[in-house]
Amino acid sequence: MRRKGILIVISGFSGAGKGTLIKRLTAEYDGYALSVSATTRQPRPGEEDGREYFFLQKEQFEQKIKENGLIEYACYCDNYYGTPRDYVESRLAEGRDVILEIEIQGARKIKEQYSDALLLFVMPPSAAELRHRLVGRGTESGEVIEKRMKRAAGEAEGIEEYEYIVVNDDLETCVRQLHEIITAAHNTPQRNREFIENIRTELEGEK
Amino acid sequence: MRRKGILIVISGFSGAGKGTLIKRLTAEYDGYALSVSATTRQPRPGEEDGREYFFLQKEQFEQKIKENGLIEYACYCDNYYGTPRDYVESRLAEGRDVILEIEIQGARKIKEQYSDALLLFVMPPSAAELRHRLVGRGTESGEVIEKRMKRAAGEAEGIEEYEYIVVNDDLETCVRQLHEIITAAHNTPQRNREFIENIRTELEGEK
Repeated sequence: MRRKGILIVISGFSGAGKGTLIKRLTAEYDGYALSVSATTRQPRPGEEDGREYFFLQKEQFEQKIKENGLIEYACYCDNYYGTPRDYVESRLAEGRDVILEIEIQGARKIKEQYSDALLLFVMPPSAAELRHRLVGRGTESGEVIEKRMKRAAGEAEGIEEYEYIVVNDDLETCVRQLHEIITAAHNTPQRNREFIENIRTELEGEK
Repeated sequence: MRRKGILIVISGFSGAGKGTLIKRLTAEYDGYALSVSATTRQPRPGEEDGREYFFLQKEQFEQKIKENGLIEYACYCDNYYGTPRDYVESRLAEGRDVILEIEIQGARKIKEQYSDALLLFVMPPSAAELRHRLVGRGTESGEVIEKRMKRAAGEAEGIEEYEYIVVNDDLETCVRQLHEIITAAHNTPQRNREFIENIRTELEGEK
């Protein structure tokens, strides 16, 4: 079977460890590409254009919106953030699985346009563990932690829209699980139409 | 997450190697149980009641049909074959993944009753390879081989009703793939309702 790239959307509670998971997944296994977002916010020290983000001017970003050059976009704190279509599609065409870390609103927009996209939701083993991790970071104020826990309650409402959940208890196990789920997803009939049609045509000749 | 057993239906072309695959899967990995069918045909030498089949009298079998004691059944060559419901359900209750090798008509009946059942379809890498294997067995006449190839063409029409296809090219790879697909299937939101509800309740308390 010729393997086509899958667009993979990863969502999950803040504090569930999505970032670390994705970093490990792409480092340990071949065939993945990370989507690079476009943004109008200023680069921070050490950030490089085309690596952390594509840094655009507001006018450039709005031009991209007009041209349908973004799969999805949103505005936070007066800055645009979005997913450039050409970058994602060229990686998929290479046969790579493209990973997008995004929230549920973005995930929905992606599923509308790419029905074959794979939607994954990362969860902590429990709400208590989520709080424990947020506190353990030591970088968040009590107020921010409360806000994140409340947001998690809202995010939890959309879990059924995802195809798989992954529980991040042990990091190693979770990375392997993530990879296995994605590998399995390559084996749906919908993602192997060409292979199935070929074998059908061959079998028709046998009739 | 507490792991519940999944009812796994394995179909595929005759000659695709389903039997060998299933034998290897259940031998190499824990947590599986093979469904044992009931039949009214005579036991063959070496066959044991409750191992290869549950051997029943015609009246006993028809009584089971009446009592809704069979998940599905069919009649071939004047003999009944069917899947006893209690055997399957008690294995599932133990948390085991129960494997059922069955054709598409049976697979449909199972999906109607067990919407969480996982339907897998085993394929050869090509029609030419399928013919090659059937010929290679040396036990089938030319006529039987032609019949099986024709049947495969019919069976190929239903592939989209299955959730995953597995290509049996290399046996070892295929057994591992099968196991990974089943492992991944345990991670759908539908199969983890209790875990998701628990975390929601916990998070509600945070609001």
